Amino acid sequence: MPTRAQRVFPILGWLADYRRDTLVNDVLAGVIVAIMLVPQGMAYAFLAGLPPQMGLYAGIIPLFVYALLGSSRSLAVGPVAIASLMVGEAVSQHAEPGTELYMVTAMVLALLVGLVLLLMFILRLGSLVNFLSHSVITGFTAAAAMMIAFSQLKYVFGLDFPRGHHFYETLNNLTVNLPDFNPATLGIALIAGFIMWYSKKYLGPVLQKWGASALLAGSVAKAGPMFAILAGVGLVVGFDLNNQQGVKIVGDIPAGLPALSLLPFEMDWWLGLLPAALLIALVGFLESVSVGTALASKRRERIRPDKELVALGFANIGAAFGGAYPVAGGFGRSMVNDASGAQTTVASVITASGLALTVLYFTPWFYYLPKAVLGVIVIMAVLPLIDLSGIKNTWNFNRADALTLAITFAVVLIAGVEAGLLAGMLLSVALLLQRTSKPHIAVVGRVGDSEHFRNVKRFEVKTNPCCLGLRIDENLYFANTRYIEDEVMAIISEQPQLQHLVLICNGISFIDASALETLEMMVDNLRESGITLHLSDVKGPVMDQLRQTDFLHRLQPGQVYLSTHEAMRELCDL
Amino acid sequence: MPTRAQRVFPILGWLADYRRDTLVNDVLAGVIVAIMLVPQGMAYAFLAGLPPQMGLYAGIIPLFVYALLGSSRSLAVGPVAIASLMVGEAVSQHAEPGTELYMVTAMVLALLVGLVLLLMFILRLGSLVNFLSHSVITGFTAAAAMMIAFSQLKYVFGLDFPRGHHFYETLNNLTVNLPDFNPATLGIALIAGFIMWYSKKYLGPVLQKWGASALLAGSVAKAGPMFAILAGVGLVVGFDLNNQQGVKIVGDIPAGLPALSLLPFEMDWWLGLLPAALLIALVGFLESVSVGTALASKRRERIRPDKELVALGFANIGAAFGGAYPVAGGFGRSMVNDASGAQTTVASVITASGLALTVLYFTPWFYYLPKAVLGVIVIMAVLPLIDLSGIKNTWNFNRADALTLAITFAVVLIAGVEAGLLAGMLLSVALLLQRTSKPHIAVVGRVGDSEHFRNVKRFEVKTNPCCLGLRIDENLYFANTRYIEDEVMAIISEQPQLQHLVLICNGISFIDASALETLEMMVDNLRESGITLHLSDVKGPVMDQLRQTDFLHRLQPGQVYLSTHEAMRELCDL
Repeated sequence: MPTRAQRVFPILGWLADYRRDTLVNDVLAGVIVAIMLVPQGMAYAFLAGLPPQMGLYAGIIPLFVYALLGSSRSLAVGPVAIASLMVGEAVSQHAEPGTELYMVTAMVLALLVGLVLLLMFILRLGSLVNFLSHSVITGFTAAAAMMIAFSQLKYVFGLDFPRGHHFYETLNNLTVNLPDFNPATLGIALIAGFIMWYSKKYLGPVLQKWGASALLAGSVAKAGPMFAILAGVGLVVGFDLNNQQGVKIVGDIPAGLPALSLLPFEMDWWLGLLPAALLIALVGFLESVSVGTALASKRRERIRPDKELVALGFANIGAAFGGAYPVAGGFGRSMVNDASGAQTTVASVITASGLALTVLYFTPWFYYLPKAVLGVIVIMAVLPLIDLSGIKNTWNFNRADALTLAITFAVVLIAGVEAGLLAGMLLSVALLLQRTSKPHIAVVGRVGDSEHFRNVKRFEVKTNPCCLGLRIDENLYFANTRYIEDEVMAIISEQPQLQHLVLICNGISFIDASALETLEMMVDNLRESGITLHLSDVKGPVMDQLRQTDFLHRLQPGQVYLSTHEAMRELCDL
Repeated sequence: MPTRAQRVFPILGWLADYRRDTLVNDVLAGVIVAIMLVPQGMAYAFLAGLPPQMGLYAGIIPLFVYALLGSSRSLAVGPVAIASLMVGEAVSQHAEPGTELYMVTAMVLALLVGLVLLLMFILRLGSLVNFLSHSVITGFTAAAAMMIAFSQLKYVFGLDFPRGHHFYETLNNLTVNLPDFNPATLGIALIAGFIMWYSKKYLGPVLQKWGASALLAGSVAKAGPMFAILAGVGLVVGFDLNNQQGVKIVGDIPAGLPALSLLPFEMDWWLGLLPAALLIALVGFLESVSVGTALASKRRERIRPDKELVALGFANIGAAFGGAYPVAGGFGRSMVNDASGAQTTVASVITASGLALTVLYFTPWFYYLPKAVLGVIVIMAVLPLIDLSGIKNTWNFNRADALTLAITFAVVLIAGVEAGLLAGMLLSVALLLQRTSKPHIAVVGRVGDSEHFRNVKRFEVKTNPCCLGLRIDENLYFANTRYIEDEVMAIISEQPQLQHLVLICNGISFIDASALETLEMMVDNLRESGITLHLSDVKGPVMDQLRQTDFLHRLQPGQVYLSTHEAMRELCDL
């Protein structure tokens, strides 16, 4: 049994049987992730409209916090693409990019995201993420990835125009300004892209062929973005491209660890940021839990979503006071962390230390880094998020889900990520209601001599004209109670000899007050027409509910039968 | 078969076999309803903040229109209490009560309500009213009735303060101003109240004892409000109470039929009224359909909701151009209309004619009518809408429904009718999702030697340790797919000998894309643990859906069995 301290800090449990080779694995994975995170952190900070050092800071304190509290062994927390896009959208509505206020607003947003996550823990609302259906997530992610990719094209082509609030602004700005593209910048971007693509696809196998160990080859292959950065810096410095050709570079990045800062409190300002914080928290938590669950299940372990709420909550609060912006568990880096052999969150400590060293000593190295390289890094990171095969499967399986996916995708592109997410959630609920408001109702009969009763339209079954079995395939509740009443009455009207109607309730898991009233009216109406209503196959919880009312009394002489078989045998010897 | 014209105008079908005694019945019912409608119309107009003649106009053109198009024989259309309250709330946000603009805005609102109803017809959205659950309606109606009753107390006590936008303003204004109450006004109100209570409760029986026919006695008893008006006017005129005691009277009511008027169009203004129009249309349609259905079912007839949308839509458009405000089928007057023997909508034509005569010739008679009497008429009309026994039943049956009822009630009182209605609808959907997101899952076993399988916790059943039957009592969809996966895995982990898991699908009516993905993952995970997943009792529509994917292929060697009985017999000889 884990001790109390181990329950709060899962890392203590892992350290209890920590061994030398575990440490070797953790260090290796931590270093590899740090090498990925340095360029990604800067690139995602740009995506959010923030200076590069804030992306690096986001990889320091939050990681230390997550290492202490997180329940996933290999989740790699830090700045992530979609949350960065959402931060940019939200903050730019409250401040001008490039200003001090913009940075502080991003930090306040991180604090709010952290508080929202902790509140979700306290209120046990972690299951809220379940209301993001697969189709909403797929559509949302694909559209966000497209927005992110297009937003980076301005760096890739070396164009200069202000950040757009909407996708069509970005598209319009791109097309209008495209003739002014900077050839040297585009050249660097293409070279960087090629290096990353080659590293990812071919470098590992090539190195192995040259005799490198699989581990070394795999690790080196993951440094693609770093190679691209080296190439970019080398080209700019070598050919003085920033002065001669106007290639935009990152420039000064303040060195040194972030100062712990207090955040100014202003009610209206904080309240205005709250809706964005809510959605960023939800999306960040969802991404973290999804990838965390996937990685844990490979080890036949489970992560604990409630613990993740706490860990991510404090990680974001750490981000806020550590000069950074909202963080989450990233998909790509977590996969790499796991594949590189991370055994515990000690790997995160290593990564965070790597980033701390970077901001202390190595920021001058990135002075000449072309922004175009960062743009390419972002584009390469988000393109795999467009899940074409998932979209195709959804289309084949269920058109309602496909519609949700398409609408979510479209609204994200037209009106922004927050509107798209909300539209998707509302639509999936609306379609659910629509689907359950006109339930399938089957007239059933006995299959052969068995005790099994199935739809007369699909099976060869025996029936009896004075005794009808009706199966309603849905819970009875306000949205379908009128429909069901109408349908049942319509079916009855075609059965002149009918004496007994058996409602088969195996598809009914609850009955609400509206439906109970309708049922009571149906009992009376049927009785006046000389038909007795019976129930069969009523599930335990529904029966418990009905027993608390006088419905069973009103039903008499109608009976509740254990099974349809018994009902039919007793009522009409079928 | 009805002709095409008869389908559009149901009245033509009824007139085809119209007889002398049908006419007698219709005329009598029409006259009685007119006698009720004259005071109610004026009173409801006051409730909406409108001059009394607009309430009378609302009983003329809309009734002629409904008589032509309506499918209910005895629905009494006209001004109704709750819609009047909603009109007052909505219009007072756009104009000052008492101004020309206020009246025109109410007329525009009627036009918009009419257009919304016609749009609902065109888009086949009549079933939208089904999303107002029984609990929302009960809570909403009770709160609205309370608000209406309290809003009239200022007339009853003869107080003078401006119309409040919120219930607490009304309450506050009442308590602050109560010391200034007008004794003569309160006296008149008490007398009027007594007359109406006595007429309703005792006048009929007393008259019958005195030898009047049951028909006459019943008809006279229904004229209670008219007697109260006569008494009020008599007292004011007799003792010159308006000048001597400051009793507020209705004053001049312009005589003559309403002039058909064009309505000014202004985009922003109309759009601002649209949300209110939508809710008034929904509530009005709901009230009309509910009472219409109840009355029709007594004759074993059905009203046609789609035709009612058209009839009420045009009735409201008629109201707009006929100088009136939104109308609906009223609960109380429809009951009286039916009980008084209305056979067809000819009764409405009679009522409308009565009101036309009233505005042409009798408005001077109401000059001295004390406003307090109108207040009492409204209060007596709305008090029965507070359905205490319905509230009690809901509480006993289902706490979630009771919560919805309570919240709807509270929000209506605190934030207004529109907010309350919306809150109730959202809450009932949220509770529905919450209820389906953690479905009941039962481990089942064979009941005796039957083919019937039930919950091991509730029945004496036979099971086999290598073969588990699990019944999931809910559709599989995004909100419950994670929960179900967790629960199933937890149950499995306690069954070390398990080889076959049979998911019993008789409670599953659809599976969405999120759930399909989870199912596919479960098949793989179970297989790795040496357990084969099978399905049984899959309903036809779900099977159709699954056949469109490669799920059944991935399930192998798992099978889909027709019944749990077959599955258990084949898999483990149970």
